[in-house]
Amino acid sequence: MSPSTETRSSWLSKEELETHRARMPIVYVEAVPVRVDTNGTVTHFGTLLAMQPDGTISRAVVSGRVLYGELVRDALVRHLEKDLGPVALPRLPPSLAPFTVIEYFPDPSVTGFHDPRQHAISLAYVVPVDGDCRPSQDALDLAWLTPEEAVSEHVRAEMTGGHDRLLRLALSHVGVLP
Amino acid sequence: MSPSTETRSSWLSKEELETHRARMPIVYVEAVPVRVDTNGTVTHFGTLLAMQPDGTISRAVVSGRVLYGELVRDALVRHLEKDLGPVALPRLPPSLAPFTVIEYFPDPSVTGFHDPRQHAISLAYVVPVDGDCRPSQDALDLAWLTPEEAVSEHVRAEMTGGHDRLLRLALSHVGVLP
Amino acid sequence: MSPSTETRSSWLSKEELETHRARMPIVYVEAVPVRVDTNGTVTHFGTLLAMQPDGTISRAVVSGRVLYGELVRDALVRHLEKDLGPVALPRLPPSLAPFTVIEYFPDPSVTGFHDPRQHAISLAYVVPVDGDCRPSQDALDLAWLTPEEAVSEHVRAEMTGGHDRLLRLALSHVGVLP
Amino acid sequence: MSPSTETRSSWLSKEELETHRARMPIVYVEAVPVRVDTNGTVTHFGTLLAMQPDGTISRAVVSGRVLYGELVRDALVRHLEKDLGPVALPRLPPSLAPFTVIEYFPDPSVTGFHDPRQHAISLAYVVPVDGDCRPSQDALDLAWLTPEEAVSEHVRAEMTGGHDRLLRLALSHVGVLP
Repeated sequence: MSPSTETRSSWLSKEELETHRARMPIVYVEAVPVRVDTNGTVTHFGTLLAMQPDGTISRAVVSGRVLYGELVRDALVRHLEKDLGPVALPRLPPSLAPFTVIEYFPDPSVTGFHDPRQHAISLAYVVPVDGDCRPSQDALDLAWLTPEEAVSEHVRAEMTGGHDRLLRLALSHVGVLP
Repeated sequence: MSPSTETRSSWLSKEELETHRARMPIVYVEAVPVRVDTNGTVTHFGTLLAMQPDGTISRAVVSGRVLYGELVRDALVRHLEKDLGPVALPRLPPSLAPFTVIEYFPDPSVTGFHDPRQHAISLAYVVPVDGDCRPSQDALDLAWLTPEEAVSEHVRAEMTGGHDRLLRLALSHVGVLP
Repeated sequence: MSPSTETRSSWLSKEELETHRARMPIVYVEAVPVRVDTNGTVTHFGTLLAMQPDGTISRAVVSGRVLYGELVRDALVRHLEKDLGPVALPRLPPSLAPFTVIEYFPDPSVTGFHDPRQHAISLAYVVPVDGDCRPSQDALDLAWLTPEEAVSEHVRAEMTGGHDRLLRLALSHVGVLP
Repeated sequence: MSPSTETRSSWLSKEELETHRARMPIVYVEAVPVRVDTNGTVTHFGTLLAMQPDGTISRAVVSGRVLYGELVRDALVRHLEKDLGPVALPRLPPSLAPFTVIEYFPDPSVTGFHDPRQHAISLAYVVPVDGDCRPSQDALDLAWLTPEEAVSEHVRAEMTGGHDRLLRLALSHVGVLP
């Protein structure tokens, strides 16, 4: 049995993907994993230390492409499971409206959000995770940061491409920006 | 030991409450309880059949006052537990921004949202509940409605005071309005 | 002087565009133009009668692609000017967070939002316009609908691909769903 | 002709207001006035230097109570006109959902938002103003701050009661937090 057209077309060769990246904005989803207490207040923000698209080893949140034929919700679940493991139990929000849209450009001066590979338009969500997080082998470390730690100079220095700013937007959205 | 000032003042006599209701808008919270599937899509909307402020026995969502000194999140948890029982496991959203603000007036012609007792300003949330719901004795019935059922003429006829409209706003917010 | 790489790559040949459409989700923006009164309440919703991608002549809102290298805000302004003319004076929202994300698929059964050409992920906004609207030559008609008209069977029958549903989501978002 | 009950009850004596303030949360609206450029990007944030409830002369945004019988939109327009003058031309958002809810308590340790007079629940909005702003006589100064100025130590030192934090939440909401 041959794979469906939809499945085949989501597997682009490296060369094909680069052609698209030079011609069209690419749709991304980003999820800021959080721990919440019993009344829903966010207490900690998850960040992964890993090799980033810009070649640095730095901290970022869960992030990845939406494939052809894939629902945004399914892309979010797929990337959360890939980065946090199969038992993280992410709680996707009931509304698909992202709390913000991040625009990454190869030119870092356009928006301050930088991706050397592409023009990416990223739908950003805050996602509570209740389960046990087992970061993938690609990640060197998963750290759960308090709001104070998340805005500290130390942590900001570990983030590139505007990810420190994305993290502060998430803190603001959930009302815990110190 | 005497109760704290904060606690005492939240227990208004019936007469005192009526004085306030005639002079100031009263802050309410409303929670539309929902069931979600694994990728966060809302599948069912919970409604309680109970005696309403307008004297009818009709369907509504979880609703109640915010007390003096009480956090909005704590008021939401309190009313959810009161109406759905202690093991409903509500998942409050990480952001406190309501998806809409409902303005109830004693005069039903102002906004179409009607509360004969008061001018109420209500912060409305959609709240996934994962646990076992045991409606309080005040409720005759807790029904979980599909989106199609929630907008049906049958269900709309069971709601008063604009609650059918609130339910449709919640369906829209989570993207499942048929 | 030759055009910049960015400009060139946004002009895809018809063939190139079709290749991309078969391989990647395409980013769209949609704007529901509205008239508001002095306190910001929405009174009318603008819809354009025009040839749609599905080959029908039907009603829709302002819609179009985000180009490579283009900011989402600039794409919104460009499509609003293209469809409503240069003196419509659109008031883009201060936040870029869309009120909803619409997912169009070639298969109408996936989400109910249908685009025979492509998998499109569309960021949807409500945009007050204060100025004089002069619809482009492509449009046969620009109609300003009251909330009651917007949800009427008559108007819904003039919309295809889920656009009637998008319009009702916009009515809900601004709190005027009848 | 006697004034209507609704009008009369919104004019509480100073003593009556203090009774309510000790017993019930009071509903407030807050508006962060902003200047936007042609594509809707926020460029400046308006702040008023005036005597605050805590007795300090410090910087804050537009703020005030919602009266009995008053629509939230009408309260916003009333306070914007009171603080910015009759030709400020505020553009209220089409949706009434606030970007955040601020909870002020007499005890500054509860949320960090402090109002010595009362427990206030405040619906916060970002409101573009296009017109000429003429601050009321109560205000010593109206300053339009860039995002960089708004987060500067200098400006933060001029704000009390958590207003600096509210301002940063507004910057985040519109995506210009530096």
